[in-house]
Amino acid sequence: MNLLVVGSLSLDDVETPYGEVKNALGGSTTYFTYAASYFSPVRIVGVVGDDFPIDELKFLEKRRVDFSGLAVKNGKTFHWGGKYHTNMNIRDTLFTELNVFENFNPIVPDSYRDSEYIFLANIQPDLQLHVIEQMTHPKFIAMDTMNFWISGMLKELKAIISKVDLLIINDQEIQELSGESNLFAGVRKVQAMGPKMLIVKKGEHGALLITDASLFWAPAYPLEKLKDPTGAGDSFAGGFMGYLAGTDDGSEPNLRRAVIYGSTLASFCVEDFSINRIKNLSVMEIKNRFQKFLKMTQFDAGDC
Amino acid sequence: MNLLVVGSLSLDDVETPYGEVKNALGGSTTYFTYAASYFSPVRIVGVVGDDFPIDELKFLEKRRVDFSGLAVKNGKTFHWGGKYHTNMNIRDTLFTELNVFENFNPIVPDSYRDSEYIFLANIQPDLQLHVIEQMTHPKFIAMDTMNFWISGMLKELKAIISKVDLLIINDQEIQELSGESNLFAGVRKVQAMGPKMLIVKKGEHGALLITDASLFWAPAYPLEKLKDPTGAGDSFAGGFMGYLAGTDDGSEPNLRRAVIYGSTLASFCVEDFSINRIKNLSVMEIKNRFQKFLKMTQFDAGDC
Repeated sequence: MNLLVVGSLSLDDVETPYGEVKNALGGSTTYFTYAASYFSPVRIVGVVGDDFPIDELKFLEKRRVDFSGLAVKNGKTFHWGGKYHTNMNIRDTLFTELNVFENFNPIVPDSYRDSEYIFLANIQPDLQLHVIEQMTHPKFIAMDTMNFWISGMLKELKAIISKVDLLIINDQEIQELSGESNLFAGVRKVQAMGPKMLIVKKGEHGALLITDASLFWAPAYPLEKLKDPTGAGDSFAGGFMGYLAGTDDGSEPNLRRAVIYGSTLASFCVEDFSINRIKNLSVMEIKNRFQKFLKMTQFDAGDC
Repeated sequence: MNLLVVGSLSLDDVETPYGEVKNALGGSTTYFTYAASYFSPVRIVGVVGDDFPIDELKFLEKRRVDFSGLAVKNGKTFHWGGKYHTNMNIRDTLFTELNVFENFNPIVPDSYRDSEYIFLANIQPDLQLHVIEQMTHPKFIAMDTMNFWISGMLKELKAIISKVDLLIINDQEIQELSGESNLFAGVRKVQAMGPKMLIVKKGEHGALLITDASLFWAPAYPLEKLKDPTGAGDSFAGGFMGYLAGTDDGSEPNLRRAVIYGSTLASFCVEDFSINRIKNLSVMEIKNRFQKFLKMTQFDAGDC
């Protein structure tokens, strides 16, 4: 099935205790697309400036990525700078220059409108809504968001949340959105906002897939060294949505597999800066890591 | 198999956002014993004052708990007071009155010396060492510790760590003991100190069982309301060691089951104050919750 992603493409300056990069490929759509393209064709809606090294991205055409919805405008690409400290959970944003992304108006090309799997990366909630209004055959819509919209555009955010199949959100955002300090009490409140299911990303502590009927607890991959956490969440979303679209099977066992493929891609992402590690993985690398997740979690009730 | 526990018994004053108790049964040995006694006979070494409501504990004799190593001294029982805030991960110790526990010298009665499974609860490291020197047939020795000994008695702590089969430790203590901010880098350093395996307790994020050859990632039970987190770690240890001693099977699949039984007992513990919830569980309650852990974690690789 076809998978559409709408969100940002950027050039990032990132500094971590393990090094730094400047003007490296970044943005939610970029990470998402690299991760998803191992499993499914991907259609991109986004905007970049004329300084964007579009040829680097075009490398993905061989993995069936469609760029007809990517606008190249006169001006500079969205430019973001961040710095991580020894505790990689703490990040300082050094600068955010929206540039051509500032007036991003996601127009879905006619050739994309029949996309069945849709990922609304972290953009303004009313733009997310605008995207799904353009779709003719949506089957599974997932969205991301961030604290900025929770505090600044709550009404619009709730409007889009009520319309999606899946809200992908992190544990802190659950607390902010629900006002509950207990994660599971918060989850219950966010479920009541209307999404069919939730994925709660807990970083190094894994992820939860929560439907009305079930809870799946996925581990994170144990890494002794994270070089750069940027893009982990979007790589997770890409692995998840790519696998789901590629298999076109929304059953609970398959959703769980998709979570593990998401976790797998996220774990590769943080092993290097930018998309360096997830740019060109082999099928065997992905499958072997999936198997390691399986080995880490399996147990049985024994004889009693 | 017989299971020996050596540690504290106390009377606790605990305040949480959900209520408070005064002079409630507490201490590592108390929580451990209640949890373990569902699976195995337990032998206790400890000391209490003449104010301790020993009859409450004697209720456990029907679950094959042996109190011949419990000394009752003239004076007051170890008395501890703590207060939890809305974020239950933050605890203030209000007072610590060691009383008769101050000069605790763990003498293992002759009738206990052949115990094969041994749990050294969180006491001074040289006393932990003194206990295992008295044992004639140790088969599986597990120990707990705390930041107080890491910062104040590191040499003695490392001496006992090198002699045990299992060190049960929380994620913060791994960081303090290893000096590493990354958990898995810390784990590697602590493994080099000599214990055969580690269990890393991560509270609401679950627990890890780590051997030289494998890593098992256990979830925590999703609770919307924790009434009182006191004793969760010792209930975990009790469920784990009780199941292990009761089955007398140290294989990897059985160790994993034991971790889940530990997590099960810990999840019950925090649902009420003191030992109220774990005092008298039914076998079905325990088995049903174990099954919920199973359902939360299982997935497969599908066809591909």
